[in-house]
Amino acid sequence: MHRLRKPYLLFLGDVKDNLTAKTAFGLRDWCADDVAGEWSLPGCEVTLGLPRLTPQEAQRRGAGSIVVGIAPTGGKLPPHWVAELKAAAESGLDVVSGLHTRLSSFPDLVQAASRSGARLIDVRHNEESYGAASGRKRTGKRVLTVGTDCALGKKYTALALAKNLISRGVAASFRATGQTGIMISGEGIAMDAVIADFVAGAAERLSPDNAPEHWDVIEGQGSLFHPAYAGVTLGLLHGSQPDAIVLCHDPSRRTIDEYPDYPIPDLQVAIDDYLRAGRLTNPAIRCVGLSINSSSLSDAEVEEYFRRLTRDLGLPVCDPVRTGVDELVSALLR
Amino acid sequence: MHRLRKPYLLFLGDVKDNLTAKTAFGLRDWCADDVAGEWSLPGCEVTLGLPRLTPQEAQRRGAGSIVVGIAPTGGKLPPHWVAELKAAAESGLDVVSGLHTRLSSFPDLVQAASRSGARLIDVRHNEESYGAASGRKRTGKRVLTVGTDCALGKKYTALALAKNLISRGVAASFRATGQTGIMISGEGIAMDAVIADFVAGAAERLSPDNAPEHWDVIEGQGSLFHPAYAGVTLGLLHGSQPDAIVLCHDPSRRTIDEYPDYPIPDLQVAIDDYLRAGRLTNPAIRCVGLSINSSSLSDAEVEEYFRRLTRDLGLPVCDPVRTGVDELVSALLR
Repeated sequence: MHRLRKPYLLFLGDVKDNLTAKTAFGLRDWCADDVAGEWSLPGCEVTLGLPRLTPQEAQRRGAGSIVVGIAPTGGKLPPHWVAELKAAAESGLDVVSGLHTRLSSFPDLVQAASRSGARLIDVRHNEESYGAASGRKRTGKRVLTVGTDCALGKKYTALALAKNLISRGVAASFRATGQTGIMISGEGIAMDAVIADFVAGAAERLSPDNAPEHWDVIEGQGSLFHPAYAGVTLGLLHGSQPDAIVLCHDPSRRTIDEYPDYPIPDLQVAIDDYLRAGRLTNPAIRCVGLSINSSSLSDAEVEEYFRRLTRDLGLPVCDPVRTGVDELVSALLR
Repeated sequence: MHRLRKPYLLFLGDVKDNLTAKTAFGLRDWCADDVAGEWSLPGCEVTLGLPRLTPQEAQRRGAGSIVVGIAPTGGKLPPHWVAELKAAAESGLDVVSGLHTRLSSFPDLVQAASRSGARLIDVRHNEESYGAASGRKRTGKRVLTVGTDCALGKKYTALALAKNLISRGVAASFRATGQTGIMISGEGIAMDAVIADFVAGAAERLSPDNAPEHWDVIEGQGSLFHPAYAGVTLGLLHGSQPDAIVLCHDPSRRTIDEYPDYPIPDLQVAIDDYLRAGRLTNPAIRCVGLSINSSSLSDAEVEEYFRRLTRDLGLPVCDPVRTGVDELVSALLR
């Protein structure tokens, strides 16, 4: 389990476009209170609109970590960023990265961190070994976001559900299963990097026994309908033992992203398949509604589409960005 | 992908009982032509009935590897066996182990191997990185053994199917997905040790494009009904894209082994669930029959039980040990 030290200094390197800095924007939006400022190299053309602080300044103001909030093509850390991260480590900031390149593969950085006592944390990787799942029913309540595909709003939906629950005074925790989620939450387990036999076990560890009325809102991964990642999705579903699922969907997709031979399933089929699979570890599992990424639709189209879905599926339908998740949370608490 | 050098010298350490030496017996029985002899330490009370050869003698007679064919409680390599393995490595034999303890954690052994050029191979571990599955349909035919639970004959059934196919003159390859299977076959991938995201990708790699009439007989892992391991089972199923499955079952089990709260599913439900899941990557998947581990039943009980299953499920039913797998292979080739 990764546990990060907040607040963060968000590092942008010398990126040229906002999309590559997606993670940094996500952190700014979802954990604004935990972000001390931003820092970048000469030539950077992106700003988050936050105070610019050097790593040394950020450290003096109480920051715990510098976070590489960038997803360059190929997932590699540009070597010319390393000097700046080394300076941050020397000042005592933990260095947090979600890239493929391991921070520990830079001897300079390792030395600097060991001198100052800073930690180098690769949230995409998992050095820890998790045991096999026990299958034991845990106390507390759990909701898992699931999807018809990858990358269509499972993290965003889970964050919105947790925020809404807390705003109603319900005890709730967002449980992160991917790198950006872990950075936002400050802790979590990158499920896709766990050894295959221990995915369900890691999911059990992520949402341990809790107070009877406490909700763990667990970020889903992958999709049961994805030819490469369904195994991770199933292990996470089984280990999470969710009482409720929310199905996330993007109506503009006809096929699985980057897998044109694999159609997006019918929504009722998707719900049925998730519930059938989830019953293994929680026979009381139910679907409380749909979270639609409707960015491709006009207001009129959304209204018509949501009305049709509600009628056909008999469930509340929301778009976290457009409508909020109030109806989903009300269904969850019913 | 592990690739081992045969023939093997089977090392028994100083074990006291046949059960702990289960892997060594399996190798003797399933790849007799690839086994040069056995070797053990003073105090060993087990013999495989093979010629006793020192590592040096075995190497001189052409052996490629010394294989630790032992599964001690806890999966640890007893330190007092290391000197003998070191001598084997010095003589030029590769050292192959299926234990949790990594051979590379013994500096003496690493040094000896590096001097002689021998390899240290931990078949339980996977240093290799596999990519994500492509989902692309491959040429050739594939059959996967699946189960109502773990450890009830999926490897044994796959080995029996491959042997039977070959005896009929059908081109076939056993594809190993667990440590004992890898030792028997001499190659394979330990699926449970792969990073979760890449299980289906590793399964694609394990059974690549082949001749149209060639059968890959793939060793199944885990069970879709297992609260800890179903994710591995699903990833292996999706990546294997099997044209056919054989369901393995032990009628003496009422609940999943070591999970008394998890019932063994109804056989028709199990078949339907495997086929439903398998259709994602191969819509033509079919179940060709059942492989029953009937060791708990009398001859009369088996006859009655098999008759009932055949009638209820409309499929051939075999026990590889008791009846052979002729009927399953005939169904496969129809």
